[in-house]
Amino acid sequence: MKNENLKVAVIGGGSSYTPELVEGFIRHHRELPVKRLVLVDVEAGREKLEIVGALAKRMVEEANVPIDIELTLDRRKAIKGADFVSTQLRVGLLNARAKDERIPAEYGLIGQETTGAGGFAKALRTIPVILDICRDIRELAPEAFLINFTNPAGIITEAVLKHGGVRTIGLCNLPIGTRMQIAKLFDVDVSKVDVEVVGINHLNWATRVSVEGIDVTEALLSKASGAGGLTMKNIPDFGWDTDFLRSMGALPCSYHRYYYMPEQMLEHQKEQLQQGFTRADRVKQVEAELFELYRDPDLKIKPTQLEQRGGAYYSEAAVNLMTSIYNDRQDIQTVNVRNNGILPCLPNDVSVEVNAVIGANGAQPVQPSKELSPQIRGLLQVVKAYEELTVQAAVHGDESAALQALTIHPLVGSADKAKRLLADILAAHREYLPQFK
Amino acid sequence: MKNENLKVAVIGGGSSYTPELVEGFIRHHRELPVKRLVLVDVEAGREKLEIVGALAKRMVEEANVPIDIELTLDRRKAIKGADFVSTQLRVGLLNARAKDERIPAEYGLIGQETTGAGGFAKALRTIPVILDICRDIRELAPEAFLINFTNPAGIITEAVLKHGGVRTIGLCNLPIGTRMQIAKLFDVDVSKVDVEVVGINHLNWATRVSVEGIDVTEALLSKASGAGGLTMKNIPDFGWDTDFLRSMGALPCSYHRYYYMPEQMLEHQKEQLQQGFTRADRVKQVEAELFELYRDPDLKIKPTQLEQRGGAYYSEAAVNLMTSIYNDRQDIQTVNVRNNGILPCLPNDVSVEVNAVIGANGAQPVQPSKELSPQIRGLLQVVKAYEELTVQAAVHGDESAALQALTIHPLVGSADKAKRLLADILAAHREYLPQFK
Amino acid sequence: MKNENLKVAVIGGGSSYTPELVEGFIRHHRELPVKRLVLVDVEAGREKLEIVGALAKRMVEEANVPIDIELTLDRRKAIKGADFVSTQLRVGLLNARAKDERIPAEYGLIGQETTGAGGFAKALRTIPVILDICRDIRELAPEAFLINFTNPAGIITEAVLKHGGVRTIGLCNLPIGTRMQIAKLFDVDVSKVDVEVVGINHLNWATRVSVEGIDVTEALLSKASGAGGLTMKNIPDFGWDTDFLRSMGALPCSYHRYYYMPEQMLEHQKEQLQQGFTRADRVKQVEAELFELYRDPDLKIKPTQLEQRGGAYYSEAAVNLMTSIYNDRQDIQTVNVRNNGILPCLPNDVSVEVNAVIGANGAQPVQPSKELSPQIRGLLQVVKAYEELTVQAAVHGDESAALQALTIHPLVGSADKAKRLLADILAAHREYLPQFK
Amino acid sequence: MKNENLKVAVIGGGSSYTPELVEGFIRHHRELPVKRLVLVDVEAGREKLEIVGALAKRMVEEANVPIDIELTLDRRKAIKGADFVSTQLRVGLLNARAKDERIPAEYGLIGQETTGAGGFAKALRTIPVILDICRDIRELAPEAFLINFTNPAGIITEAVLKHGGVRTIGLCNLPIGTRMQIAKLFDVDVSKVDVEVVGINHLNWATRVSVEGIDVTEALLSKASGAGGLTMKNIPDFGWDTDFLRSMGALPCSYHRYYYMPEQMLEHQKEQLQQGFTRADRVKQVEAELFELYRDPDLKIKPTQLEQRGGAYYSEAAVNLMTSIYNDRQDIQTVNVRNNGILPCLPNDVSVEVNAVIGANGAQPVQPSKELSPQIRGLLQVVKAYEELTVQAAVHGDESAALQALTIHPLVGSADKAKRLLADILAAHREYLPQFK
Repeated sequence: MKNENLKVAVIGGGSSYTPELVEGFIRHHRELPVKRLVLVDVEAGREKLEIVGALAKRMVEEANVPIDIELTLDRRKAIKGADFVSTQLRVGLLNARAKDERIPAEYGLIGQETTGAGGFAKALRTIPVILDICRDIRELAPEAFLINFTNPAGIITEAVLKHGGVRTIGLCNLPIGTRMQIAKLFDVDVSKVDVEVVGINHLNWATRVSVEGIDVTEALLSKASGAGGLTMKNIPDFGWDTDFLRSMGALPCSYHRYYYMPEQMLEHQKEQLQQGFTRADRVKQVEAELFELYRDPDLKIKPTQLEQRGGAYYSEAAVNLMTSIYNDRQDIQTVNVRNNGILPCLPNDVSVEVNAVIGANGAQPVQPSKELSPQIRGLLQVVKAYEELTVQAAVHGDESAALQALTIHPLVGSADKAKRLLADILAAHREYLPQFK
Repeated sequence: MKNENLKVAVIGGGSSYTPELVEGFIRHHRELPVKRLVLVDVEAGREKLEIVGALAKRMVEEANVPIDIELTLDRRKAIKGADFVSTQLRVGLLNARAKDERIPAEYGLIGQETTGAGGFAKALRTIPVILDICRDIRELAPEAFLINFTNPAGIITEAVLKHGGVRTIGLCNLPIGTRMQIAKLFDVDVSKVDVEVVGINHLNWATRVSVEGIDVTEALLSKASGAGGLTMKNIPDFGWDTDFLRSMGALPCSYHRYYYMPEQMLEHQKEQLQQGFTRADRVKQVEAELFELYRDPDLKIKPTQLEQRGGAYYSEAAVNLMTSIYNDRQDIQTVNVRNNGILPCLPNDVSVEVNAVIGANGAQPVQPSKELSPQIRGLLQVVKAYEELTVQAAVHGDESAALQALTIHPLVGSADKAKRLLADILAAHREYLPQFK
Repeated sequence: MKNENLKVAVIGGGSSYTPELVEGFIRHHRELPVKRLVLVDVEAGREKLEIVGALAKRMVEEANVPIDIELTLDRRKAIKGADFVSTQLRVGLLNARAKDERIPAEYGLIGQETTGAGGFAKALRTIPVILDICRDIRELAPEAFLINFTNPAGIITEAVLKHGGVRTIGLCNLPIGTRMQIAKLFDVDVSKVDVEVVGINHLNWATRVSVEGIDVTEALLSKASGAGGLTMKNIPDFGWDTDFLRSMGALPCSYHRYYYMPEQMLEHQKEQLQQGFTRADRVKQVEAELFELYRDPDLKIKPTQLEQRGGAYYSEAAVNLMTSIYNDRQDIQTVNVRNNGILPCLPNDVSVEVNAVIGANGAQPVQPSKELSPQIRGLLQVVKAYEELTVQAAVHGDESAALQALTIHPLVGSADKAKRLLADILAAHREYLPQFK
Repeated sequence: MKNENLKVAVIGGGSSYTPELVEGFIRHHRELPVKRLVLVDVEAGREKLEIVGALAKRMVEEANVPIDIELTLDRRKAIKGADFVSTQLRVGLLNARAKDERIPAEYGLIGQETTGAGGFAKALRTIPVILDICRDIRELAPEAFLINFTNPAGIITEAVLKHGGVRTIGLCNLPIGTRMQIAKLFDVDVSKVDVEVVGINHLNWATRVSVEGIDVTEALLSKASGAGGLTMKNIPDFGWDTDFLRSMGALPCSYHRYYYMPEQMLEHQKEQLQQGFTRADRVKQVEAELFELYRDPDLKIKPTQLEQRGGAYYSEAAVNLMTSIYNDRQDIQTVNVRNNGILPCLPNDVSVEVNAVIGANGAQPVQPSKELSPQIRGLLQVVKAYEELTVQAAVHGDESAALQALTIHPLVGSADKAKRLLADILAAHREYLPQFK
């Protein structure tokens, strides 16, 4: 798509992650010559936008790359003519997240930002906003790619695929993080590591791992079973049981701990809450500290503290993706796209997280090297059914779909709790849920 | 298949259910002229076989129908040349069942004969025996239909379909019971009621119900939501929540209570166990009383007390099925058969419980009237994946498959509990599990 | 659907077939108590409508059944409130059919009313009219079943399924005729014969045939291979080669001769054309004679000569279908319905001709007893692809689809001929093809 | 798979193509450091093997690369421990090919080496030999990749996939040739051209073509429609009709001319035969001349005349494939592999020719960018059904499958001709068809 005026719009540009992204654009400017980088946010985020925007400007100046940083509250202006629109927004801010974490906990359930009842509530709030953005893109930048980071990324991407009418790819830093950590485990450069990822966002499996072309999956399952190792910043790092991991035949992702180790995870959550705070509270604190740093007019690079925020590799993933599209690179990345039968055990029209060839035309999934085993398939299918119901509930304000979504989610699994949770969620986020009358 | 020498072999013929079956053969003798009815049992069941066999003989004599009742401990002799072989066996007898109910309860989980960890243990014990019976049928009665009632009927049927090499149809009294109860609810004769059943054994949904051709599904969902009504003898009859039932859009079966109402079911189980007995214990008592009755040489008909045993409509279902095959009746019954794509959300080679046209060629499924909703599909898929893993574990003595089967079962849902449950189950039933070295 | 005012609208009611249908309604009045039978036709068919309508009135009077025969040129009035709408129309009348038979012949190809380039042209003319009728039904009788006999019945039914928005079932007399002829071959009553039909309209196979429940497929393939036997009035009755028929493993239908025996069929066509007339010409003559008979005020029953017309069993098929729907009979009939995966080798949204359970809810296909062999599958798929393209061409006036449809049809098989045929067809029927600008 | 002793066995090593391959190994020795190149042939090919082997030795000496050329008649020795086994054999030599071309022509049909009745006969002769080779590979080099060039490459690959039990990838020079020619048409380097290939061997379509990431499919369809351009050496180069090509929406391959332009192809064939020779005769002559050249002890490079033989890009394709496997390059190439649902309109277990990611693990297909249109799907399906039947016939000596295969092949399309062709083919090649008793 070579062009002289490459424009990228970042919705939720006032996010504390933005310096990550800016650093990525700086580092890869030769391959991805972004001309205009427009950071847009809502009125409530004006102050943060200004702080982070000023830092961004200092960063590009310091690096001496010709990227124009633009700040705006006018989303339509930001989108108009963009080549890429990326979204990293948070409807209801961290206060809403805190509720997503607390409400399920009241029922003895996992309260988590992206999965279970917490992720469900976040999806209900976010989907109407994303579909609104899609309307703008269809009108003002119909050829743009919408690169979605917003969580729960798989559900949001599915809503866009089904109802958005724009070209979209969902992205998560988990797959790239997994590769990084495997590289570390095998003590090789990450470029030597290939990981076949199969599943859906935050519920994927590494079904085949090779280092320099040699299949090391079994070795990895032995190495990974001990404590330590493969996890995300925001998920407690309980080691996998060795027998369990071998019987799985594939490496689960960090979020699988909620499904396979519910006792430990609930115990951990309980301890945290007894100490008086949720993950949202901790993030709030981290964010406050970050913005304090960002204000410093002498700060001209991404501060290292940002990595503690949990967003490692975000910019890597985003810039890689855009670069491969821009240059028609035809390399393989792990993305969230329409299934279309690449995982035959799921419907055609849902989002899946799989390896795909990335080029000017977008993402084309690569067929997994073997059929999914029943242990992978079964869990995947029930959680995807939950996701489909959640999209239906969020788009149409359909309370029946919402009730069923929560009921069949393995982290809820009770019609009674589902009904009470739903009432609480609808009440707590009323202002962000116009679709439910 | 019209023939003068219609032979039926009943494996587990010493069961307390047998008078049900005999009564059915008597009542339908005109359409299904059984000539030889061979009751076969193992050495351990000799006494019961003799008692129930003697009753059977008195019953046919009283009814004056020309059925020869034969009793034997030689299974091969019983099978040789049979037209139908029916199985209603219980490996490990009621003592094993008591363990199936108690072991999961120790982990705070549902202990149930056919579903969850209890049903899992029963499948491990039963599948080797059933496949042994299949070997005999292949050799001695290759054209026979194996009519399987043995629980967990869906899993056992799947094992036979995948590994047995004989013609088989799995049968359960739940679907016929549902029709009976709907008929009662609408105050019409059962012949007026059509129920579209979709799912797998003990996890099926009535997705379309009509009375005299009129679709009454919605009305039924309102009527059925109150307490009372549609349930099995062996499952506590908690009413469904109205909103929940409507949002489901289909009528769940009795066993769904374990999945949708786990709190109440666990509470109920706890109370029962505190009173000191499992369902197995109660059944033992009922059985003892029944056999006491059966001994009475003046008893010449099926005693009404048998219905309390929980096996209502068993004989109805069995005799209906055989009659339709024998007479190529081409009517519609609910059976367990190979999927072959009739439920496209499940693999081709698994067993499903659906409506089928029954004729001389066996059962041909009827396409459901609409696509399954995600709420049905998701739960169905994860439980079916559990069943596939269970078959794999039972046939090959595969502990990895066993561990994964228990882990993903919604009534377990924990790798840690699964591992400990598996160890307990393998230890408790060691003598019946030769496939696990 | 029990009601006192059962109304049937017959579009193309002035057809020479109508007495067949009337006779059927008379004979089955007890099970299907039609109250109002409305015959509707276009202005050009007014005279025939009046003649055949008058005969119909004499027939019901003679039979003394309380059916009101109504004649009208107002289609909307006829459709309003109807329970069943049946269509047996012929856009462009027999003159257009003569062209359908002659134009392909000019290119050395088969010219036939329902298949090949002839059927293609008929589909282009008919689909706009049928979709117009559907618009009326949606508005005026949204619960009605559209029973379509109009040829090419499979393509027309597919157009209605994809674009009509009404409940529809396509019907053909070929399957019922096949059963009748098999009954004759085996010298049994037709009620003893079951035929599993698989395929699409005018390209179906009998994949399993049983007589009194006994599989006689192989015997049939031997019997049927000689000359004589299984064919339609309008197709020359060349015998099948014995080896070929056995290697097929299923009984092809009459129309298969065009695909498997093209040399003989083309030779036959050539001879006919040299004698100066097409099948359309012959039918014109037969029709003229029939209407001459119909005019006779003393004629009060269906004249036996009608059977020579080729429409044997039409009324049987139609009345059977309506009766089973009306009475929720749940019996098995061969119909054209949406595939929905019953034949997994074809797309979900196409029409297929298969056995189905017929009840108040319409038709639910029965799963075939075995997977289709490649020899069946391959031909079926390419002809179905032709049909899909034809529907696309007819609905959207899409000349690209039209050109490709003709090119891949096995009876054309040449891009060059396809292009010239298409030009000729568009020119010859310009007045009936408003969709092609 | 990095190793110091990379061994390649070339079965049919005495072929006139071998210098192509040797040149490829020389040119790419840095990335693909072949240590031992074993050329093996049958006794009948001893002389040619010696001539071409001597040339190969001179070539590597001249180029100064450390490849050991070994010549042998002992196939098992050649295969033992090989990393790659490539096959380019011709059962029955060019005399058999001449029959493949002449026999169909006697029935007024296309006689061609790889498609239609000619390709069918070649498949029957070749499959038993290839499966024999597979037996050796399973025993002596179980980790080797079998790279199959032998025609009909799609059918042979399918036989190996279904019955060979070895890792295999089928290869053809057509896709790489298409890319080369498109590059020429757009006057860019071939590295700038991406072509999405979909279909089966010798019946594929370029469904999306891009140059430097820009979609140029439509432009290509206009450019390509004139005479000249995209074809193979061995297929007459009739231009495509412009309207036809646009209505196709994708670029057909050279072999499609047999299906879409049968009149011109048959006319051309007639002319050739009237001049007294088949393509086989011409190839014989070319081969004689080539071997005359190869004998020259001063010839130390691949002679340019070889390109006229029709095998352009063969070595390119082969060496590319091996290099990507050896180096786990994860680039995209067009290969013949098991479908596994990548083309959902074909069975899972057949071979398809599609783009795939090539790495140490072999080939993983990439999902096509859009669903296949009916015009592509229909023809593809019927020809694939023919291929499935051909594999069945060749492996089991199944005459029924053989008869049905020929009957449904679009270039035969007649049961009568099929039967006579089959008799002729079985008689003509009796000595090479031991599977048919």
